[in-house]
Amino acid sequence: MRISIVNPNSTRSMTEMIAQAARRIAALGTEICAYQNDDGPASIEGHVDGALAVPGLLRTLRVAEADGAEGHIIACFDDTGLDGARSILTGPVIGIGEAGARMASLVARRFSVVTTLSVSVPILEDNLVKAGLATSCASVLASEVPVLALEDDPEAAGRKIAETVERAIERDGAEAIVLGCAGMADLSATLSERYGIPVVDGVASAVKLIEGAVAIGLRTSKRGGYALPRPKTGGA
Amino acid sequence: MRISIVNPNSTRSMTEMIAQAARRIAALGTEICAYQNDDGPASIEGHVDGALAVPGLLRTLRVAEADGAEGHIIACFDDTGLDGARSILTGPVIGIGEAGARMASLVARRFSVVTTLSVSVPILEDNLVKAGLATSCASVLASEVPVLALEDDPEAAGRKIAETVERAIERDGAEAIVLGCAGMADLSATLSERYGIPVVDGVASAVKLIEGAVAIGLRTSKRGGYALPRPKTGGA
Amino acid sequence: MRISIVNPNSTRSMTEMIAQAARRIAALGTEICAYQNDDGPASIEGHVDGALAVPGLLRTLRVAEADGAEGHIIACFDDTGLDGARSILTGPVIGIGEAGARMASLVARRFSVVTTLSVSVPILEDNLVKAGLATSCASVLASEVPVLALEDDPEAAGRKIAETVERAIERDGAEAIVLGCAGMADLSATLSERYGIPVVDGVASAVKLIEGAVAIGLRTSKRGGYALPRPKTGGA
Amino acid sequence: MRISIVNPNSTRSMTEMIAQAARRIAALGTEICAYQNDDGPASIEGHVDGALAVPGLLRTLRVAEADGAEGHIIACFDDTGLDGARSILTGPVIGIGEAGARMASLVARRFSVVTTLSVSVPILEDNLVKAGLATSCASVLASEVPVLALEDDPEAAGRKIAETVERAIERDGAEAIVLGCAGMADLSATLSERYGIPVVDGVASAVKLIEGAVAIGLRTSKRGGYALPRPKTGGA
Amino acid sequence: MRISIVNPNSTRSMTEMIAQAARRIAALGTEICAYQNDDGPASIEGHVDGALAVPGLLRTLRVAEADGAEGHIIACFDDTGLDGARSILTGPVIGIGEAGARMASLVARRFSVVTTLSVSVPILEDNLVKAGLATSCASVLASEVPVLALEDDPEAAGRKIAETVERAIERDGAEAIVLGCAGMADLSATLSERYGIPVVDGVASAVKLIEGAVAIGLRTSKRGGYALPRPKTGGA
Amino acid sequence: MRISIVNPNSTRSMTEMIAQAARRIAALGTEICAYQNDDGPASIEGHVDGALAVPGLLRTLRVAEADGAEGHIIACFDDTGLDGARSILTGPVIGIGEAGARMASLVARRFSVVTTLSVSVPILEDNLVKAGLATSCASVLASEVPVLALEDDPEAAGRKIAETVERAIERDGAEAIVLGCAGMADLSATLSERYGIPVVDGVASAVKLIEGAVAIGLRTSKRGGYALPRPKTGGA
Repeated sequence: MRISIVNPNSTRSMTEMIAQAARRIAALGTEICAYQNDDGPASIEGHVDGALAVPGLLRTLRVAEADGAEGHIIACFDDTGLDGARSILTGPVIGIGEAGARMASLVARRFSVVTTLSVSVPILEDNLVKAGLATSCASVLASEVPVLALEDDPEAAGRKIAETVERAIERDGAEAIVLGCAGMADLSATLSERYGIPVVDGVASAVKLIEGAVAIGLRTSKRGGYALPRPKTGGA
Repeated sequence: MRISIVNPNSTRSMTEMIAQAARRIAALGTEICAYQNDDGPASIEGHVDGALAVPGLLRTLRVAEADGAEGHIIACFDDTGLDGARSILTGPVIGIGEAGARMASLVARRFSVVTTLSVSVPILEDNLVKAGLATSCASVLASEVPVLALEDDPEAAGRKIAETVERAIERDGAEAIVLGCAGMADLSATLSERYGIPVVDGVASAVKLIEGAVAIGLRTSKRGGYALPRPKTGGA
Repeated sequence: MRISIVNPNSTRSMTEMIAQAARRIAALGTEICAYQNDDGPASIEGHVDGALAVPGLLRTLRVAEADGAEGHIIACFDDTGLDGARSILTGPVIGIGEAGARMASLVARRFSVVTTLSVSVPILEDNLVKAGLATSCASVLASEVPVLALEDDPEAAGRKIAETVERAIERDGAEAIVLGCAGMADLSATLSERYGIPVVDGVASAVKLIEGAVAIGLRTSKRGGYALPRPKTGGA
Repeated sequence: MRISIVNPNSTRSMTEMIAQAARRIAALGTEICAYQNDDGPASIEGHVDGALAVPGLLRTLRVAEADGAEGHIIACFDDTGLDGARSILTGPVIGIGEAGARMASLVARRFSVVTTLSVSVPILEDNLVKAGLATSCASVLASEVPVLALEDDPEAAGRKIAETVERAIERDGAEAIVLGCAGMADLSATLSERYGIPVVDGVASAVKLIEGAVAIGLRTSKRGGYALPRPKTGGA
Repeated sequence: MRISIVNPNSTRSMTEMIAQAARRIAALGTEICAYQNDDGPASIEGHVDGALAVPGLLRTLRVAEADGAEGHIIACFDDTGLDGARSILTGPVIGIGEAGARMASLVARRFSVVTTLSVSVPILEDNLVKAGLATSCASVLASEVPVLALEDDPEAAGRKIAETVERAIERDGAEAIVLGCAGMADLSATLSERYGIPVVDGVASAVKLIEGAVAIGLRTSKRGGYALPRPKTGGA
Repeated sequence: MRISIVNPNSTRSMTEMIAQAARRIAALGTEICAYQNDDGPASIEGHVDGALAVPGLLRTLRVAEADGAEGHIIACFDDTGLDGARSILTGPVIGIGEAGARMASLVARRFSVVTTLSVSVPILEDNLVKAGLATSCASVLASEVPVLALEDDPEAAGRKIAETVERAIERDGAEAIVLGCAGMADLSATLSERYGIPVVDGVASAVKLIEGAVAIGLRTSKRGGYALPRPKTGGA
């Protein structure tokens, strides 16, 4: 089966990193096709970046579907454009934010999300409320490590993230951690071992959820919330 | 004071109708500046139209702010792009959907929203949940009258809308009605008289809420949920 | 248009201060008529004061309506007697507590309420839940400054209030503050400037919301939750 | 032990009926002292009657406490003045509305409340939300039988109430019924037998809950929500 | 009337202590019949102990009903097996956890539960959510005093419990405390006096609630959630 | 990888049917080991059957883990014993009820659950609330087809189930259906085609979710809600 994973931003190094992370975990027989939204911003930090990314993201997803992808992953922890994507595609679609949270709730009663900057916290909180996952979420915490710092100074970044994980466990009672950024994927094994609790990576979770949904023949419902857009007549 | 009202879609006749509705109700001393998103779709029906409208809408709102507007109205009942708009603007911003619902909750314990097509119902429901208005909402009902039909066959459209209002009152216990489309504004007086309950128009509500917020000196908080985007360095 | 603002307690200096605050912000063409509940307690601190104030408050509001007021403000942050007032009046009615919270939620994703004494905290919390505003509220905090101390030692009072505002911002993540007492109105500009976030005054918010509701022709629904009382026959 | 039961309205026949119902169910050793609020309205139907009843009700409850009552029942299904009563009394206090709902939730997963007029429905719904009992409540239904009609034409009244009970069971899935009016107490045994589910009377429930609370030494907490009013200095 | 109180675990000393606590508070005319689940674990700490206790507990409850008990108490703060018990018995049934919380909510707006080990906290939290009591609960705190330590070193145990009570009051705003273990019953009077707030014991609360429910003739509804099991045909 | 699927009841034909359904959908390289709880009831209909099944179910799961299973499925739509199972096992565990609902929420905004008998409805509703899935659930409906009737008269059973699916779509606005019984798995393709919406089978969903969780290395958190039971000393 072919699965598309779309980076809604235009930074090539991140697209490659995400593609590798997805391929590492994909099942035999799954072909991961990575796409990049060349019309998107360099990174997605907050509502405005997200909004600007969506039109290009939807175009990219249509290309992916035309290329034969049967399921789709939006590789941004904000789940940018998820409702729109579900409205135009017939295959199942997930964002890596929702994916990480859904997997965490299989192995823990309460999880915390550890993300990069505080500007993303309200967006992630709103997404969790909408998905019904807020009651299972102990907290959404920002490590204040910007996405690119993960590459520039991984040691300092790792220290700050570990401190945030510790706060989630000690203060908020987190029983599992969802790492809220594609760039943190490499840390999950180390952190899980150090703190003795599940540390969940969103990209890996999304690959497995979409592989599963496609395998059992699920397609996005076209009745109600994700109905196809009506054709336009006239206007701009 | 100058208030901008932005039509997120590109249909000129709607922009004009909205501008007139806003001017009719504006206080002496309020200048209503109407803008149109020429890069938007012809109408906004569902998630995809909404997503495609936002980049142009945000650009238009920046122009309006540069033109001296101190407060802003997004003239789409879906409150398209509201979070993004609040993140880039310093004046207060409201969408006509949230505005109508907030006004209705001042004069009734439970209101219903009567909108055009069922594709908008889930979007309006999600917006009400996010704004904390869901507990005051008896139901969101579609009249299945498309936006343009309001102009083409106003009599038939009016009949269907009246039937939906009746259902909201009789079946769902609505004590007030919010008309969920800018094009329905003319009906509010007639329907209110016929059914003896408040029938609220979103455009008029938005004008009054923004006039009020500007008059008392409120500006959108730049701390937390609506923080300004960080400047980008590098990328696309 | 004529708007009544009713002080539910019997302290003349507060009635005057409230009237001035309302007049300062009222639009040209709005006549603010201030009333005082001479049968009420000297101040309203807690459930019992509130309950004792209501019969006189409702009588006063009937007088205000007979005097030609088209909209009404209950000038107590506890929104004392609001449901009863909405049940006997046809014009729109708001309390300054609900008004401040509704305005704050237009310009911030999460606000905190800073009030006088802790005895009011549970009442304000219950009101926010009932109005659907609890999800937008980060916290309700008491500064432990009694109403009258605001006049007696304004400097000390101001210091304590500022500390409470700081706690709301730092600890609870408040993005805006609602000042929970009519007597704090003068502090809003100073605090807003010092902390760089919106600081909302309930009296000003209420004036603007009622001006707006009257301007667009809204009257309190007489169907359901705020139906007029049935006439009594017999009994005491 | 001595328990006061206070009728917040001024209709003597209801006070007597309530007193008898309470005495019939009281344990040996419990002395039921019935009081009547002579300053209250003839009956309590809606917010305004409730508000007008409270000052006299609180005065009456203070008399009851001075007379040695160790626990208190407010004999109105709206739980009129309950928060205020808990703030001035040291013994435990309950309203018959909350009492009936709490007892029903011991013997059924979902109950419906069947009350007299629709004007009471929103009040009862708000009370259930505040008490955390809304999730256990299938519906609050009005039989449209006014209080006094229960005495005037008991047969017709009984028929309408039975129909409403049936609707609660069939349509709303009620597993138990709470009878929402002191005057309906006599019907509970008959209805329970006919429909094969628990039919709960609020007066009896309140007597047992207060007997129990007093027996185990509970007094109303004076910390937080039900703190004693601070003494007033000055004012009216 | 005869009421059964069933210890779901097999530790005789606890059964006796519970029986004595129940008898001390029972009304004249109430016969408390204590039962022990000889097939249960030595104590119930967490989900697994709870699950293993239920089959024997249900058998024991059937014996109690056959012996003539008209109401039933499950003497474990986790309310082990409560749904199953309500499904097989016709008399009313309560667990001491739900009982304590219901009584506390009559005398305080917010209570905290102070229990033994942290392994029970999630179970108690889930039970409170299910019963609609979560909104009245300020916190569920573990004192980390194991059940048996209450007997072995009562002084040290008492100190730790008092510290936890203090934290509930100071940090979480608790207005009343529910003691979350049958073995803590003796502490309630001392703690209540020291901290000046109600301290509620679950066993005493349960006795009074069941006495009350039986006295007013309530039986568990057999419609819906607690329907009797259908007879089996075939299988193992 | 080896995954255990445990039938909590003792009916061999169901164990075999479940095993086949699981194997049909399992990935290459996944070994499905089916187990049967020989000490369980013949079927699980309601709270009591569920409670009686758990001790044997937990024993069976321990055997499965000792046999080398890395992930586990509880093959009952009531998710019988799920909390207990997560507390004793280190591999991830899911019930087929939670699994179906989680998969449905990836492809629809609102789903309905169609189950066998009404005795299961409250249990499924409670499970959905606890898992945070209630807000995505339009309704839980019973087809009143007992488990065994699915084999005895498949045509009549199929007709009743189709009618219930139709009611979920038309009346409740379901956009996807979760089939609430392992025995209904064969119907999912037919129903999905007839009604044009996703129809989700719990067994298939569970296999894919557990395969995914094991593949990415997740194990059940042993901190907090699913901590291992403490070793017992003394007692029975």
